[in-house]
Amino acid sequence: MLEKVNNPQDLKKLSIDELNVLASDIRNLLIEKIYATGGHMGSNLGIVELTIAMHYVFNSPVDKFIFDVSHQTYTHKILTGRKDAFINKDLYDSISGFSTPKESKHDLFKIGHTSTSISLACGICKARDIKKENYNVIALIGDGALSGGEAFEGLNNASLLNSNLIIVINDNEMSISNNQGGLYDNLALLRKTNGTATLNYFKALGFDYKYVEDGNDINSLINAFLSIKNINHPIVLHVHTLKGKGLEWAEQNKEKSHWVNKKTFVSTDNYANITADFLLTKMKRNKKIVAISPATPLSTGLTPEFRKQVKDQFIDVGICESHAITFASALAKLDIKPVVCVSSSFLQRAYDQLNQDLAMNNCPATILVYNAKIAGGDCTHVGQYDIALLSHIPNLVCLAPVSKNQYLALLDYSLKQKTYPMVIRVPSIVIDDNKQYKIKTHKDLFTYQITNKGSKVAILALGNFYTLGKDLLKELEKINIQATLINPICYSSLDTNTLDELLKDHDYVITLEDGLLESGFGYKIANYYAKTKMKVLTYGGDKNFNDLMPLNKIYHKCHLNVKQIVKDLFSLI
Amino acid sequence: MLEKVNNPQDLKKLSIDELNVLASDIRNLLIEKIYATGGHMGSNLGIVELTIAMHYVFNSPVDKFIFDVSHQTYTHKILTGRKDAFINKDLYDSISGFSTPKESKHDLFKIGHTSTSISLACGICKARDIKKENYNVIALIGDGALSGGEAFEGLNNASLLNSNLIIVINDNEMSISNNQGGLYDNLALLRKTNGTATLNYFKALGFDYKYVEDGNDINSLINAFLSIKNINHPIVLHVHTLKGKGLEWAEQNKEKSHWVNKKTFVSTDNYANITADFLLTKMKRNKKIVAISPATPLSTGLTPEFRKQVKDQFIDVGICESHAITFASALAKLDIKPVVCVSSSFLQRAYDQLNQDLAMNNCPATILVYNAKIAGGDCTHVGQYDIALLSHIPNLVCLAPVSKNQYLALLDYSLKQKTYPMVIRVPSIVIDDNKQYKIKTHKDLFTYQITNKGSKVAILALGNFYTLGKDLLKELEKINIQATLINPICYSSLDTNTLDELLKDHDYVITLEDGLLESGFGYKIANYYAKTKMKVLTYGGDKNFNDLMPLNKIYHKCHLNVKQIVKDLFSLI
Repeated sequence: MLEKVNNPQDLKKLSIDELNVLASDIRNLLIEKIYATGGHMGSNLGIVELTIAMHYVFNSPVDKFIFDVSHQTYTHKILTGRKDAFINKDLYDSISGFSTPKESKHDLFKIGHTSTSISLACGICKARDIKKENYNVIALIGDGALSGGEAFEGLNNASLLNSNLIIVINDNEMSISNNQGGLYDNLALLRKTNGTATLNYFKALGFDYKYVEDGNDINSLINAFLSIKNINHPIVLHVHTLKGKGLEWAEQNKEKSHWVNKKTFVSTDNYANITADFLLTKMKRNKKIVAISPATPLSTGLTPEFRKQVKDQFIDVGICESHAITFASALAKLDIKPVVCVSSSFLQRAYDQLNQDLAMNNCPATILVYNAKIAGGDCTHVGQYDIALLSHIPNLVCLAPVSKNQYLALLDYSLKQKTYPMVIRVPSIVIDDNKQYKIKTHKDLFTYQITNKGSKVAILALGNFYTLGKDLLKELEKINIQATLINPICYSSLDTNTLDELLKDHDYVITLEDGLLESGFGYKIANYYAKTKMKVLTYGGDKNFNDLMPLNKIYHKCHLNVKQIVKDLFSLI
Repeated sequence: MLEKVNNPQDLKKLSIDELNVLASDIRNLLIEKIYATGGHMGSNLGIVELTIAMHYVFNSPVDKFIFDVSHQTYTHKILTGRKDAFINKDLYDSISGFSTPKESKHDLFKIGHTSTSISLACGICKARDIKKENYNVIALIGDGALSGGEAFEGLNNASLLNSNLIIVINDNEMSISNNQGGLYDNLALLRKTNGTATLNYFKALGFDYKYVEDGNDINSLINAFLSIKNINHPIVLHVHTLKGKGLEWAEQNKEKSHWVNKKTFVSTDNYANITADFLLTKMKRNKKIVAISPATPLSTGLTPEFRKQVKDQFIDVGICESHAITFASALAKLDIKPVVCVSSSFLQRAYDQLNQDLAMNNCPATILVYNAKIAGGDCTHVGQYDIALLSHIPNLVCLAPVSKNQYLALLDYSLKQKTYPMVIRVPSIVIDDNKQYKIKTHKDLFTYQITNKGSKVAILALGNFYTLGKDLLKELEKINIQATLINPICYSSLDTNTLDELLKDHDYVITLEDGLLESGFGYKIANYYAKTKMKVLTYGGDKNFNDLMPLNKIYHKCHLNVKQIVKDLFSLI
């Protein structure tokens, strides 16, 4: 049946039976492709029928669809001209796993993290109404996205609209992990009462409301959409779907099947596991340590087994990074030690809370930043901004360890100390340097480690890029430059003693960081030496949204390899 | 009666009649003090009785109070040992207008912007429960703060608690401006039904709920608090208060009396008025221009008169900066021109939306950043972070005009262009340079204006600090240095042609910016010249939370005056 469908128009010619065959075809295709490449399994399997029914009833791209979270757009992509990327293995990597306008006119926005769809839909509706145009606007939100504060802000504003807006709640009973919060009890009540309960979160916010119990039944869905198509006011259509539908393992393991890794060997020696093992030992001994996850415990090592063992010492707050940071600030203020485990790109949601609630109140929480690195792939999930974002905040101590031992020593120290809020960039590759690393006083955090003492050229190699620094050191040795290699550890303040020492017998300083160059660590070094004779060469990620660009291409653009750096240096010498 | 009360314990000895006299005394004191110094009038007058009743029934600081927004803490301050700062004119400026721990053990957190109290309360409750302690936690939220997404995130998590938490909704029927959103229709329904309506936002989120209709009646309030004191689960106490209570003008002008200026002459020639006048003219001609305010229209010039004239072309989204930016992104994508008017410190709530929704999607909206400057006063409302926060975001064009004409020319251009999202730092002092400033192409935005051509020393004076640059130029002339003075205009990218030119006959570059030095404009210049012989001296705000520090003291610390800069320069020459 898939052969017949190249765009949404083809869909409209099919019978309900044929649509059901199509759903089955798509489901099989999804399972095969996601197992091969990795990807969001459960959420996409759950809304195959919902997506088909939307495209059957509405007329995209005239009618506007916004998917939130946009990782549940696989069926939408298959139906809007991108099925080859799911069928043809050679094209598997040609598309993004998220909504991407340059791929198709059916994707309006590049959308990464969650909870923005209703705000976007409000903008589209307002634009449509100003221009006196006439079409349906459909925001599909679910898979945990309702717990983000911006979803509420959107709902609170959307219900005031005097024109068409359809908000589809994809209620699969799950967030990335389990749903969290009182709102989800209300959704459960609504499911239990077939949508008839008088206590209704959406109606309380001013919405018209409809419920579809079998959200995997195409016929029911089509009828529901037909009944509200061209509606002249905002309505919430609450649809109950089954996450993982059609794949028994996924239906029964909703959290584990949310994201599926490529069918390749994944080493258990990764920082998610290392962190969880370390925290578990500490938390068993100290009941005042609390681990907090904004809905992503599994990807940060906080597995169901971990949670079972630490019980109340683990808190999943749902997808709401702002709350997570403010909540942790208060805990730390009252002598509890919260450890917030969060991805770099998701932490962007909490800048103000990091600045005001955490740092201004100087609450000694620990924030572990995962996936903090320059990355290829979808530009919405790139972890390169956290250094620029966090390192200028007063009081906040930002650390970038280079090895497993150093990471654990810093984490250990951060759990004990009560002086500062601390951010630790979780390294990306496990390097076991077998060196014991001891921190006795705060001063040790702010003192650069000189791992090789040379002259003329000094390499300040931060965090993940310490290995690049080592490679550079070796390359320079080949041409008889005995450089100095430094592990700065801390990127929020400068070790001015060491920097001043370097002035005595060095002419060039090279900084390397696995994050955005602009406004990062290197810029601090450049500014420090700006009044001196020291020449500074700074390296890091570039100021571009490099969507779906291979990492080695980004590295090449940014001269993030030994050969290019040596060439740059020689152009100066 | 005020003489008898020095701390909350004294309060507990008074009769209801005496408490009423006390309320009257406090109200008179507030009116006198706020008229003299400026401050939040309406919200504080509205909760005199509520604050008295809270302190009468509960036992602060053992029981924990969190005020949100914390600008409604004046009565709390009077009752907790800080009344002299309201009585003694010499001490008027000795306290902050916001919750400030260093002033009193009754203030737990430094809190500036809104909607964080419930998240903070969740943290306090969790800490209390881990430590097996026993006290009441009371979050008072209102005056618009419920519309911020983090308030929802807090509520959604709070209702799951299995222990004491009292959330007091101060429902004064207002935000800073009028309330916005479907939620407020539900509050109106609850008021109308004396709290009995079955459709109840708080109950839908899982809360126990009580309503107090006369929130300015001490007796009712005390009884309500007594009935829920030591409650063993989360409860929402919805209290209906009268904003501006006791001052007829304030009761009738709730928006204008929200914040009252000092009784001094305020020039109408300010950028709020200039912006509004300009936008009004443009918006009348072009129905596709839309002004958006996150609940602060008055302070950004968008007065009731303005709103009356532009009708649907003005949208107050309530206190929710994240939604405001995402909403504007979608409008701009669909060929509408949104102009978001927002204070620098409040914009901190929307970093991720600025990065991903606005800039990554390259939506050509205009963001006007008000109060963007280094400032004395309460450190929660300092506008010094926006340069560091925004200028590293790809695609985002960030501009800092130096005069009225330049500001209007840039604003005008931003309204016409469809290429980039643009941020304009609204200048703080109106300088009418009488020069016409024309922008023909994008290139003009990125080309530095050389306003005085000299040699040896070049001054790059950004935005507000262009006048400091002019003063510095004059001072250098006195000692026979004919410096170059440059107005960079753009702070998100560099005019490398001009910077390269400077290398020919200049040895020193001085950068001046009215914002955080670290990771700001000067650091970009320092990095650009890092490989050259150019010496760069960078000046801007320091990396500290300078709470209640006079501006001249901050300037002195940061060498932000001509004499100190010249001295620094001469130490190098």
